[in-house]
Amino acid sequence: MKKYDLIVIGAGPGGYAAAAHAALNGLKTLLVEKQHLGGACLNSGCIPVKTLLNAAHFLQKIRKASLFNIKVERAELDFAGLIDRKDRLAKRLQKGIANLLQSSGVETVFGTAELLPGKTVSVALDSEHGRTVRQYTADNIILATGSVPGTLPGIATDGAWLLNSSQLLDRKTIPASLAIIGAGVIGLEFADIYSRLGCQVTLIDILDRLLPGEDREAVEIMQKSLQRAGCTFRLASKIAKIENRTIFLSGGQTVAAELCLLAAGRKIDTGYIQDSALLKNSKGIPQVNEFFQTSVPGIYAIGDINNIALYAHAATYQGLCVVNNLLPEAGGPNKHSAVMPRVIFTAPQIASVGQYTADYKKIPVALLGRAQTEGQTEGFLKLFLAENNSIAGCVIVSENADALIGEAVALVNTRTKYSDLQKMIHPHPSWAEIFIL
Amino acid sequence: MKKYDLIVIGAGPGGYAAAAHAALNGLKTLLVEKQHLGGACLNSGCIPVKTLLNAAHFLQKIRKASLFNIKVERAELDFAGLIDRKDRLAKRLQKGIANLLQSSGVETVFGTAELLPGKTVSVALDSEHGRTVRQYTADNIILATGSVPGTLPGIATDGAWLLNSSQLLDRKTIPASLAIIGAGVIGLEFADIYSRLGCQVTLIDILDRLLPGEDREAVEIMQKSLQRAGCTFRLASKIAKIENRTIFLSGGQTVAAELCLLAAGRKIDTGYIQDSALLKNSKGIPQVNEFFQTSVPGIYAIGDINNIALYAHAATYQGLCVVNNLLPEAGGPNKHSAVMPRVIFTAPQIASVGQYTADYKKIPVALLGRAQTEGQTEGFLKLFLAENNSIAGCVIVSENADALIGEAVALVNTRTKYSDLQKMIHPHPSWAEIFIL
Repeated sequence: MKKYDLIVIGAGPGGYAAAAHAALNGLKTLLVEKQHLGGACLNSGCIPVKTLLNAAHFLQKIRKASLFNIKVERAELDFAGLIDRKDRLAKRLQKGIANLLQSSGVETVFGTAELLPGKTVSVALDSEHGRTVRQYTADNIILATGSVPGTLPGIATDGAWLLNSSQLLDRKTIPASLAIIGAGVIGLEFADIYSRLGCQVTLIDILDRLLPGEDREAVEIMQKSLQRAGCTFRLASKIAKIENRTIFLSGGQTVAAELCLLAAGRKIDTGYIQDSALLKNSKGIPQVNEFFQTSVPGIYAIGDINNIALYAHAATYQGLCVVNNLLPEAGGPNKHSAVMPRVIFTAPQIASVGQYTADYKKIPVALLGRAQTEGQTEGFLKLFLAENNSIAGCVIVSENADALIGEAVALVNTRTKYSDLQKMIHPHPSWAEIFIL
Repeated sequence: MKKYDLIVIGAGPGGYAAAAHAALNGLKTLLVEKQHLGGACLNSGCIPVKTLLNAAHFLQKIRKASLFNIKVERAELDFAGLIDRKDRLAKRLQKGIANLLQSSGVETVFGTAELLPGKTVSVALDSEHGRTVRQYTADNIILATGSVPGTLPGIATDGAWLLNSSQLLDRKTIPASLAIIGAGVIGLEFADIYSRLGCQVTLIDILDRLLPGEDREAVEIMQKSLQRAGCTFRLASKIAKIENRTIFLSGGQTVAAELCLLAAGRKIDTGYIQDSALLKNSKGIPQVNEFFQTSVPGIYAIGDINNIALYAHAATYQGLCVVNNLLPEAGGPNKHSAVMPRVIFTAPQIASVGQYTADYKKIPVALLGRAQTEGQTEGFLKLFLAENNSIAGCVIVSENADALIGEAVALVNTRTKYSDLQKMIHPHPSWAEIFIL
């Protein structure tokens, strides 16, 4: 049985980054991947969705080009071509990861892993000659197997009418109407794409408000923007049954649509873990400490699987932490950070980081000269202050929020006082200036 | 003679911000303006130029829409309409400043000021009934009179063929060809606008490289982008004479063009200062200390006139410093800061802050997943490190640099170590992520 310093199971943004970092720093590293390098993020999540969002937003901007004194005769999106382009982009980025892994010295094997007791990983490799199973062992194992599209009891995707997000991303035509079950981040981003491409979108959610953890004013601006784009929201709505491509809500209303997306969050699959010590007392999800160690010494769980924060950037960060702690001398991250930024890529975007407190400064985007020159004046920035007037958190609802949030990340992490921020000169007329208006 | 706590001469971004801040905090404040609220920045500089740049870049992006699978039949810019729009925007922003001044309690007077000895300001007001002159005095006076387009010996603008930037901004047609004398920031931004609108642009400069103080690699990327847009550079070129709308270079070459822009920096006019104590030993420019006090107690000079940093944001910051030091208790800025960011709004932009050192990390934009989804992969970010590995400076050449530079501003001001930056989680797939790749 071949032995490694480190085996990483799962080549998503957490796993491949950890593996490359480890191998570059001299650890003998094996990376096991079931399907595609880059995981859900690259192949059926962040990157494909942002590619579609970017095209949808650009098309909409072109249709409003007269605001910028530009007359456009006709603008048409080749949706099938866009779907092909997103696939090509995924392939190109996969290749980039493959090159990174190779140049870092990672050994990569494609197959289905099982985690056996005694830090043993068995990998089933299917080829034209049938299935072979190999076993590997390591001093340290990182579980980075991510998640899959979530399900709801009694609502089963059929691949034809009721699709999950991965299935919808592969369809090359825009339906006339789309029902979305679940108005979380995934549902909202898909609603944004399809409504701006002329599809009639209805979002259904059991909660009576969108994104309950997010700043209420920011969410309202985003929701109104989606409504202007043609989205209908059916909140506080329970689904009684689904029949004949029609969703019956318990209030008596019905939603009929050409297609239906089930956007019920993400599901963590730990079925491959055959080491019972690891999942003991854990409701099926590996419990980890602040260094992402599980209850079994030498086994770590990073990314979606530990259910701390289901973001690609959380997975990457956690993977680097684990590897840094295996190295004799390493700078960079080494343990859990509560300062976790997040972005919803609707138009306008909502980007946020840190804690929301009762004491905040709110700056409307319309005050920005730069926003005025671009005709993008919707939204605001809120800086939330801790009791000592340091910047505890930030929410930005605006065009460009995913770039601007970087400054808030730095301010929150450095616990900068609001009065000290005011002493930092920001260029005029820039987007960045919004922090000191 | 009416007496104030504070008189501010000049209602540009330094003067109006200082006046509003002072009046809001209880100082009896008079603001004197010769022409328009907002100064050169709002009326003939930053804001109008960015409005034109935004439209030019958007038009170019539309023409490349097929990259995003969008087919556009015909896109045409109504340039005269754009010029009108920039004027309307300026008027709207002027009105915003007027409202701010009024609600803050600033008394504003439109007229031509002279600074007399004894902290006395005389203002000539022209009306249909002729000229009246009023005199005012104050304990404190802020000179914030900015600058005007620069000139070169022997090269005089004529308002017809040889124009300064303010004059060119008012022309409602795009010339077939444009010669630009001076390839500094102003010349480059105009070259960017006109070349992308189909005009044949030739830039002439006596220096043998562009922007000598700026990062050489960043400048090269921007220069190549302008060359691709059709700009021709005649560097290391001295002008021998100008005759018949033709520029004769001392090397024997000639540049003929339909129009010529003189972009020879900015000129500081101190002709209105009749208090000789103030300009003593100063080569015509008021010398100030780190609190922007001139040699005459109670008289301050902020913005372009003190020649420290000719940026709108420098003026605003300095104005707030002066007022804060007049108030019994004030947070925020109070003295000179060497951490001065700047942005050149060409495509790609160059944004920079802090010091350039020999030790730097360079991150290509192409590594960013987000940039890949937008098809904007040109450029890089460089983080310059001080000896203790704190972040001393940053240059970004990229789309979106004016938003991204905000994080660098925070990192440089907080002297954050590079290893601590790596511990700050950045959202994926965002533009902000470039700081930790």
